[in-house]
Amino acid sequence: MSLQTPYLLFLGDAPDMLAAKVALGVKQWRPENCVGQYRMPGCNADCGLPDMGIEEAVAKGAKTLVVGVANRGGVISDPWIDVLKAAIESGLDLAAGLHNRLADVPVLAETARAMGHALHDVRVPDRLYPIASGAKRTGKRLLAVGTDCSCGKMYATLALDAEMRARGRASAFRATGQTGILITGEGVPLDAVVADFMAGAVEVLSPDAPPDHWDFIEGQGSLFHPSFAGVTMALIHGAQPDAMVICHEPTRTHMRGLPHYPIPSLEETMAACLSAAKLTNPAARFVGACVNTAALDADAAAACLADIEARLGLPAVDPVRTGVGRIVDVLE
Amino acid sequence: MSLQTPYLLFLGDAPDMLAAKVALGVKQWRPENCVGQYRMPGCNADCGLPDMGIEEAVAKGAKTLVVGVANRGGVISDPWIDVLKAAIESGLDLAAGLHNRLADVPVLAETARAMGHALHDVRVPDRLYPIASGAKRTGKRLLAVGTDCSCGKMYATLALDAEMRARGRASAFRATGQTGILITGEGVPLDAVVADFMAGAVEVLSPDAPPDHWDFIEGQGSLFHPSFAGVTMALIHGAQPDAMVICHEPTRTHMRGLPHYPIPSLEETMAACLSAAKLTNPAARFVGACVNTAALDADAAAACLADIEARLGLPAVDPVRTGVGRIVDVLE
Repeated sequence: MSLQTPYLLFLGDAPDMLAAKVALGVKQWRPENCVGQYRMPGCNADCGLPDMGIEEAVAKGAKTLVVGVANRGGVISDPWIDVLKAAIESGLDLAAGLHNRLADVPVLAETARAMGHALHDVRVPDRLYPIASGAKRTGKRLLAVGTDCSCGKMYATLALDAEMRARGRASAFRATGQTGILITGEGVPLDAVVADFMAGAVEVLSPDAPPDHWDFIEGQGSLFHPSFAGVTMALIHGAQPDAMVICHEPTRTHMRGLPHYPIPSLEETMAACLSAAKLTNPAARFVGACVNTAALDADAAAACLADIEARLGLPAVDPVRTGVGRIVDVLE
Repeated sequence: MSLQTPYLLFLGDAPDMLAAKVALGVKQWRPENCVGQYRMPGCNADCGLPDMGIEEAVAKGAKTLVVGVANRGGVISDPWIDVLKAAIESGLDLAAGLHNRLADVPVLAETARAMGHALHDVRVPDRLYPIASGAKRTGKRLLAVGTDCSCGKMYATLALDAEMRARGRASAFRATGQTGILITGEGVPLDAVVADFMAGAVEVLSPDAPPDHWDFIEGQGSLFHPSFAGVTMALIHGAQPDAMVICHEPTRTHMRGLPHYPIPSLEETMAACLSAAKLTNPAARFVGACVNTAALDADAAAACLADIEARLGLPAVDPVRTGVGRIVDVLE
């Protein structure tokens, strides 16, 4: 999966900022990939990029229109389709991580075929992957794991990569989910890969690299989430992590979507992840905790981080509140 | 995935018995599903079923021709295609677990469409599965797990199911691979399911059942196989096993296909499987070991089983040599 940059970010008629969180993520982490934003009447989101039409974006070098907004009710509306069709006709590829595929909208599929442009539905793998070999690869890798799904793993690895690059080190973020793929323009939509090839897809995602190069691999799921733990296991084995960070949301009481499954402790999650990781990299170790304290006030957040740090004997940070510098210090 | 029975078993031009092992498995475990075998000139395999042509098989009630032979070099040869086409024209569905799909042979696809018959490529899921809920289901379940791939998990669970039914108990074998699906006519080709839906597919495979009913669920892979452990993890979580048997091939020194990965011990494999299983069924426990001693002589096999039994404190059997009665005793 590989998208052409730079992007025109399509915010559509997003009712609020939350609906445009994909666009906001792209702008936050890869502003250099964005020439501007396209907003329709009624749009209440704003990425802080110049508003522009399609022709202006093309003139400024845009190669791909990225749908950075969720479609309500799973419907790609007619007003959206008009804009997306015009974008293809003006020379842009389209990319989206919507639940329904761009390629399943006949007029978009026909226009893209006629114009020779690509429709990237980043929830769907665009190629076949090999079965994992388990062979050790060169370079260094960090994988984010978590007590649950959706607790900040993508944000943590994007922040670690940004901090590492700010220090002048060689590093890359490796996306395993659709938002991460749209942000960086490449990656593997791991949860949509066929079972036998999951670990192999991760091996392809993070290939051999120079000895001092770090790949920061986006985590998925949790070994303690009964719906998705198999994906997490394959990701751990394929990633061969030298280092892991444990991601956690301290106010959550049950696994996402499953009220009858409590959140596991940090310690038992780490023990299970470490045991799995040592199969393909016996040197695997934890280097820190990334805690999403957004639901806590400043004092409670500080106390939470101090408590976790004392319990684990590792730096505990909130990537948003404190940054991840102290974890990168450990890697250096 | 659900096939119509009974079958005509197609042995084609199998050069030896090994090439026809799928047909032999169907005959061994579900003779009541077989009306006869179809052999072409040069066939050196024999299931011990009456040889018959297609018209005779149809007259005897056959509903599906099952390709029970491996195709050499991944090619479905022209002589095969002639027979398969004639079978469809005579009123049979086709089923196969070949690497290349029946549906990708144009003349078979066209004939099946024209005649209104089904082509079952059992390596490929024929429907969408839900995301796993993790909700506890009624009935009892046993799952086979292993130190490695291909160490006798299908055979063990087929034998356990047969023994249980021979004792007049309610039980079913639940297939998770193509050979098992062809044997019983239904199941889930788990290694071909999309990652997010693996555990959900297993929940569908083994639904709610009466309290004293046992499902014997075919195992896949190993938590210690770096290529496939994610599939195994999802299978353990989706199966919610009350009981597990550990399957093992005692002369193997490395993981199948991966010379640089040694075989884990029985004890560490069981500990990892039990830890995973307790997430969705806290009452999970091991009830025995099924050891494939085919590579040992009788004395060595007996010593091997005695050693494992002493180490684990559980019945250790070879399903082929000793039967699985002592494990079923534990379940009763």
